[in-house]
Amino acid sequence: MDITIVKIGGNLIDNNILLSEFLSSISSYVLSNQPIILVHGGGLIANTIADSMGISYKMHNGKRITNKEMLEISVMVYAGSINKQITAALCSLKCSAIGLCGADNSLILSERRPIKDIDYGYVGDIVSVNTSFLISLLSNGIIPVISSITMDISGQLLNTNADTIASTIGIELQKHKDVTSIRLITCFDKIGVLEDIHDNKTRIDNLSYNRFLELKNRGIIDKGMIPKLDSGFKGIHNGINSVIITSFVHIDQELNHVKCGTQLQA
Amino acid sequence: MDITIVKIGGNLIDNNILLSEFLSSISSYVLSNQPIILVHGGGLIANTIADSMGISYKMHNGKRITNKEMLEISVMVYAGSINKQITAALCSLKCSAIGLCGADNSLILSERRPIKDIDYGYVGDIVSVNTSFLISLLSNGIIPVISSITMDISGQLLNTNADTIASTIGIELQKHKDVTSIRLITCFDKIGVLEDIHDNKTRIDNLSYNRFLELKNRGIIDKGMIPKLDSGFKGIHNGINSVIITSFVHIDQELNHVKCGTQLQA
Repeated sequence: MDITIVKIGGNLIDNNILLSEFLSSISSYVLSNQPIILVHGGGLIANTIADSMGISYKMHNGKRITNKEMLEISVMVYAGSINKQITAALCSLKCSAIGLCGADNSLILSERRPIKDIDYGYVGDIVSVNTSFLISLLSNGIIPVISSITMDISGQLLNTNADTIASTIGIELQKHKDVTSIRLITCFDKIGVLEDIHDNKTRIDNLSYNRFLELKNRGIIDKGMIPKLDSGFKGIHNGINSVIITSFVHIDQELNHVKCGTQLQA
Repeated sequence: MDITIVKIGGNLIDNNILLSEFLSSISSYVLSNQPIILVHGGGLIANTIADSMGISYKMHNGKRITNKEMLEISVMVYAGSINKQITAALCSLKCSAIGLCGADNSLILSERRPIKDIDYGYVGDIVSVNTSFLISLLSNGIIPVISSITMDISGQLLNTNADTIASTIGIELQKHKDVTSIRLITCFDKIGVLEDIHDNKTRIDNLSYNRFLELKNRGIIDKGMIPKLDSGFKGIHNGINSVIITSFVHIDQELNHVKCGTQLQA
């Protein structure tokens, strides 16, 4: 089985029109009997809801600290509203899609991140992935739509980064006897990794790990791009056959192997 | 296959300690290889969240009108937080449980209720149930945990009464070739249907449809009990083999066929 994992993030989720077009592309691809797994994070909705409920949360180096109230909101928004809306949209396009989080059939077990310099709160680092369950869904033509909520062995739900989930699922699936290849397509609002964030012409078509480290040291790659690329390279270094960072408006081309984003290279 | 459908409601969901004991009983039963489907409604949490977000909603004859904002909250709370917490708890008890709503694999398709005297808003009447999907999950030893959210053919999520969902799933499953019998256990905070709501000694052990109509006319059965019993009798009149209304504290006995609630009779 050749599996494509597509990861989408906030910018797409917050835009209903773009999301709808994107899911049309996904459904066309799936209806031609190609196995796909969709992994999504949250958008700005979780913050908006927290604000309207008067719940405050702290940030540390651009990362949100997940206190108990923010975890509850994340579960509601990621595993509830976003996950079920994507799933419903795919089903209305005649696909068989199931919305899941890490708790469902113990799909993604994690453990709460140990406290070192900083306590990130209810955040989970992945321990295991129920790959047989995913393979069984894909074999039955079902698209797993996975939200970025995991659980620990005691049943405590935890927040986990969606890029990490997408990459770890790929790495674990690649070890399964029924899997021939794994491709990871990470979609965001840029057309790929850019040397100058304001100039699309500076897209890097092929990004080696050494070049990534160099650009990171020079501060050209920073902020949210760092965990995205860290996860991507971890995938490339651990058995994922192809990792592409691209724009969600190019998903059609990428699914059909027309390269138009940034391809990561070992 | 002999299938047990267990429906739980708000009073249990709002009480963490009781819910945890209840899920232990469910898990013991499931681990002895008995197929079970869990259907849940919401608790007071949806109203609490609406209040804290300053969202107002109207009531009509004790039923909430589901406007767009209340639908979004229902999806988050029922299909998100409650559903995933129950699922995680069951998985931590070594069960294979999957949290679903009507959108997942088009499990429960509905259509928005036509406006007659009153517009109930985003409320769906059930059109079809994907019984093959449920049978396939049960055959694999998985507990479907179903929240009371359905979807229409366009992918619009809708609110549907959990008692109606439990009963309709039973009626539809009963038509499946692999199903031998269906038992529906509806759990709430009373020990069964009481003639005097303040006196447990007045429990009706066997309630016929005629007696139900008589008690309803006399105003002895009223409010939330009416839709619960309407759904139950609809089940009994359409192929469900056994419908029991009982307390969630007696779930262990009921699962093991020790009758201690009210049994509905045609």
